[in-house]
Amino acid sequence: MSIHISNVMKKGIKKTIGVLSMLFLFSCLGDPPASMSTTSYDTTKPDKVFYWKMTTTWPPNFPVVGEVAEKYSEWVDEMSNGQIKIKVYGGGELVPPLEAFDAVSQGTIEMGCGASYYWAGKTPAAQFFAAVPFGMNSQQITSWIEVGGGYELWRKTYAKFNLVPFLGGNTGVQMGGWFNREINSIDDFKGLKMRLPGIGGKVLEKAGGAAVLVAGSEVYTSLERGVIDATEWIGPYHDYKMGFHKIAKYYYTPGWHEPGTQLEFFINKNLYDGLPKHLQGVLDAASKRAQTWVLAEFDKQNGIYLDKLVNEEGVEIREFSQETLEALRLHTDEALKEMIGDDPLSKEVYESYSKFQKKISPWSEVTEKAYYNKIQK
Amino acid sequence: MSIHISNVMKKGIKKTIGVLSMLFLFSCLGDPPASMSTTSYDTTKPDKVFYWKMTTTWPPNFPVVGEVAEKYSEWVDEMSNGQIKIKVYGGGELVPPLEAFDAVSQGTIEMGCGASYYWAGKTPAAQFFAAVPFGMNSQQITSWIEVGGGYELWRKTYAKFNLVPFLGGNTGVQMGGWFNREINSIDDFKGLKMRLPGIGGKVLEKAGGAAVLVAGSEVYTSLERGVIDATEWIGPYHDYKMGFHKIAKYYYTPGWHEPGTQLEFFINKNLYDGLPKHLQGVLDAASKRAQTWVLAEFDKQNGIYLDKLVNEEGVEIREFSQETLEALRLHTDEALKEMIGDDPLSKEVYESYSKFQKKISPWSEVTEKAYYNKIQK
Repeated sequence: MSIHISNVMKKGIKKTIGVLSMLFLFSCLGDPPASMSTTSYDTTKPDKVFYWKMTTTWPPNFPVVGEVAEKYSEWVDEMSNGQIKIKVYGGGELVPPLEAFDAVSQGTIEMGCGASYYWAGKTPAAQFFAAVPFGMNSQQITSWIEVGGGYELWRKTYAKFNLVPFLGGNTGVQMGGWFNREINSIDDFKGLKMRLPGIGGKVLEKAGGAAVLVAGSEVYTSLERGVIDATEWIGPYHDYKMGFHKIAKYYYTPGWHEPGTQLEFFINKNLYDGLPKHLQGVLDAASKRAQTWVLAEFDKQNGIYLDKLVNEEGVEIREFSQETLEALRLHTDEALKEMIGDDPLSKEVYESYSKFQKKISPWSEVTEKAYYNKIQK
Repeated sequence: MSIHISNVMKKGIKKTIGVLSMLFLFSCLGDPPASMSTTSYDTTKPDKVFYWKMTTTWPPNFPVVGEVAEKYSEWVDEMSNGQIKIKVYGGGELVPPLEAFDAVSQGTIEMGCGASYYWAGKTPAAQFFAAVPFGMNSQQITSWIEVGGGYELWRKTYAKFNLVPFLGGNTGVQMGGWFNREINSIDDFKGLKMRLPGIGGKVLEKAGGAAVLVAGSEVYTSLERGVIDATEWIGPYHDYKMGFHKIAKYYYTPGWHEPGTQLEFFINKNLYDGLPKHLQGVLDAASKRAQTWVLAEFDKQNGIYLDKLVNEEGVEIREFSQETLEALRLHTDEALKEMIGDDPLSKEVYESYSKFQKKISPWSEVTEKAYYNKIQK
């Protein structure tokens, strides 16, 4: 998954300055206007209510990942007994999607919601907290972040930008994308024009293809008109809504480029550090609630929409051959080396990530893999 | 995993009445003694502080599942800003482990922590919210409970007992157990004396084996002395601590009898329903935090201890053959039919469970399964 600036968002950008100044009136982290206070404590010194904005990197109300931002806001409001009120804005409504990181870093906006690989340009170490081609899946990366040292490194990586990161859900293994030609070997990537952003795109180029940048809103038309031969998106639920099955023949698995994309919330560090301990705890726990809900919802909806695609729309699911995947794996190793370069933080994070992956994989092998191969019908 | 009453717990039971009467002095849900109040609001009508007890079905401080009970208590204390204080007791400290359900149902104790299959004797429908042989794994059952209608059915099932259930972590796929003889076919279960409680035990008996009830504290000695030929426990982390590798030759996978055991918290329904909304939200979110942490910790530790078992202790990991598993699957279908019998609620729950499993499995097949087979090295 990688969702980029749509036309709607571009229009949104133009409104940004106006909207921002309007919103400034309601801004945050001070004593609220008396009429907006919802605390029920009848005290001489009322508990402060925090009015925050969250900017997401997705279009407004985007299924699952946009929905969870709204849910997070409701959960935090409820748990904090109205002490933190977060208004959620879609990408482009306040700032362009990919400016969320900077806006929250600077404190213009209190918090954001996205995926850390969007910020690889800021610091290459960021990408390991989202998705790495041929990396860990959702269950594994959650373990690394939660108890394997990943979270501490994530905090360290973001602290340089005055941000605190939080888990924000995981997509699970994504699909490999929609193709207008069969991919039988690595050679079939030669000359292939594919919308495949991020490290995946770099890998494609090493395989002789062309990674084409296409805004989300223009992917369908580009594929239909042959501007691109293939595109990745997310999984059956989102892909069905995009209508790719009407114009592309082959739907490939697995999504080697995103084997379990970890999503995130991030909060301005000064604001977060200044919060009372119980409100910090509320924000932490709401992110775990998101972590549980997002993958659950993705899996449920993808199950329903895979069935529709295959049994109602006649879509053929194809598997990349092992040889193709091994060739892509080699290109990935190269691409990662280049991206990490001489950045000591990236090296530290990648080392922790790889070490954890090596330790957890044999365990996954004898349990989850055995489950899928021998238990699941 | 099934952890039963140990000797330590039995001693605990004897102390129960005394301990209970002592604790009654501090009991719950009323205005707290002034000296114990931790609310910082200087108000005329202070917010009520709830003093609760949680009884677990595991020994005190049992790794992961006991630890998470303590964590839950800390999280709730923090998030509620001291409004809910939960003191955690190991199984047997207040009531015997398997009396937790009744004690919380009756309101003697405010909340408990366990796994719902322990209560199959109360209502057979309960088992589907924990583990079903050949059923869903952790990722799938979480989706069913969270967004697939499972949670509503779980609440309905527990409401009859004046309880509200919550997610409390998942173990992931468990191991198939320790055996003193090779299991090459279903016939090798004939005459096998194995500690295998629950539905698994019933399946074993259908295969001609003997399911032997052995308390947790006595499993090691029973296996050493040949009272039993085999035992299941949990996974490498807990099994290593039990020392089974010193006395059993073969360590089998996968744990067909527990492919992703869902753990739980449960709260007395009258108490929960009477809580302010924000505290209900805090308890909900703390359970999601537990859901994330428990599987993460199991996976991390199991990865470490699998490595120790294989590379330091020379344990052989064996896989049950597909034929053996298919025979066990048939016996499981029979055992489930018998257990559900004519109970309409069990039928309703099982139908929802099975329907969800059928919808999500093809999706798992093209993604997670493909991940383990083709992406993971």
